[in-house]
Amino acid sequence: MDGKKKIQKARRFKMIIAYDGTAYSGWQVQPGHVTIQGEIERSLRELTGDKVRVESSGRTDRGVHAKAQVAHFDSLSSVKPEKLQMGLNSLLEPDIRVTSLVGANQTFHARYSATGKEYRYFIWNSPVMNPVRRLYATHIRDTLNLDNMMETAARLEGIHDFSAFSANPNRVVNDAERDLNLLAVSKRGPEIIIKAKADGFLYKMVRSLTGFLIRAGRNEVNQETALSILGSKVRTARVPTAPPEGLFLWKVYY
Amino acid sequence: MDGKKKIQKARRFKMIIAYDGTAYSGWQVQPGHVTIQGEIERSLRELTGDKVRVESSGRTDRGVHAKAQVAHFDSLSSVKPEKLQMGLNSLLEPDIRVTSLVGANQTFHARYSATGKEYRYFIWNSPVMNPVRRLYATHIRDTLNLDNMMETAARLEGIHDFSAFSANPNRVVNDAERDLNLLAVSKRGPEIIIKAKADGFLYKMVRSLTGFLIRAGRNEVNQETALSILGSKVRTARVPTAPPEGLFLWKVYY
Repeated sequence: MDGKKKIQKARRFKMIIAYDGTAYSGWQVQPGHVTIQGEIERSLRELTGDKVRVESSGRTDRGVHAKAQVAHFDSLSSVKPEKLQMGLNSLLEPDIRVTSLVGANQTFHARYSATGKEYRYFIWNSPVMNPVRRLYATHIRDTLNLDNMMETAARLEGIHDFSAFSANPNRVVNDAERDLNLLAVSKRGPEIIIKAKADGFLYKMVRSLTGFLIRAGRNEVNQETALSILGSKVRTARVPTAPPEGLFLWKVYY
Repeated sequence: MDGKKKIQKARRFKMIIAYDGTAYSGWQVQPGHVTIQGEIERSLRELTGDKVRVESSGRTDRGVHAKAQVAHFDSLSSVKPEKLQMGLNSLLEPDIRVTSLVGANQTFHARYSATGKEYRYFIWNSPVMNPVRRLYATHIRDTLNLDNMMETAARLEGIHDFSAFSANPNRVVNDAERDLNLLAVSKRGPEIIIKAKADGFLYKMVRSLTGFLIRAGRNEVNQETALSILGSKVRTARVPTAPPEGLFLWKVYY
């Protein structure tokens, strides 16, 4: 026993993570599944010797990607942040990359400190799918009505109770009011991009909004339908959930 | 025996094909390897009953992608082109897509009728690779000197003997003179894009030009070196071959 053993204090680290979600059962650790959180925690344990818990800004579902997920963790390790980042990137598969890793204040919390988030959803809107976009965009064959998508999106912006655009309609959410300060539809070549920014999102909210906007693109719903569905506060089949591959967690605001 | 059996004449078809080359041993059929040509010929045989030979504008190497490869084939089948296209896309894996298929004149030949080609090469120039670009761009960690790349590229444009920028230096090429009418370097975010257009390309010419331009980005070579290497007409280690994953056959001109 070494009586001089230094008593180390855990330090907090903040990291930004980009990932291709194709091969993973989503962010969150689940027994028997390969998850992004699981891979990062395993690599951190290998690097630091600590059993580290990594807390992100929020889970992403199976098959959903991230351009800039944010997470924090505490470690007793005295390894410099840039060494930890390099070590993680050498241990992780190339479909997960730590793009930034810095020391953070103990008060920083990836989830509770977040003030907002941006997601982007990509739709390849052309009769034939582009093979190099097949993992990162959803294929819709029929030409969508962009004007109706834009108008319908604009009507959904603002502070609303988004219960009707969230999954698990039977799950009690104390407060389903969110400030969707941006829901914008744009087009670049054959690709339609939906940008959604809010102070927070309900479960599967972006994929529900997107599923509804795709219906608007098919002229099945419009601004008026949007308002009446919002008002109902009940999730029904009128709001389908768009598939995961087109969705990216784009940015987390603090 | 049906004496009235119609004597059918083979019709020629032209198709445009997009592919993600990651999983394939290149375009050209090779025994024991999965190739793009092989997959398309197998699917066409299944659809038409004919043993069809598909001729492209030129082979692409293992791991190289195509936005718009062009190919032709002859078939006795009376199936309409649009049905053939749909049938192919339903039989092929999603990393190969026929984006167009039309009837063509018998004089059309995907390789001999081509008057020019464009390739694009993508470099992710940032310390950390973007996971969703890892299959479609080459990662270069160190910041490349874009100005030197641009100047060096400009000096390589024009009609030259490109022997020094082609693989197989010992292979006799009767005529290695090509009109490289565009070799342009641009940047979008952390991604450097090299566009190369010519009346034709020698074997591994784009990857050799790119390998050299990456050296220019590292300030190891410049315009003068480019001219002296061009003049030497001998391929040496001064011209490395850039990896395949960043390369796309972009367009074929007729």
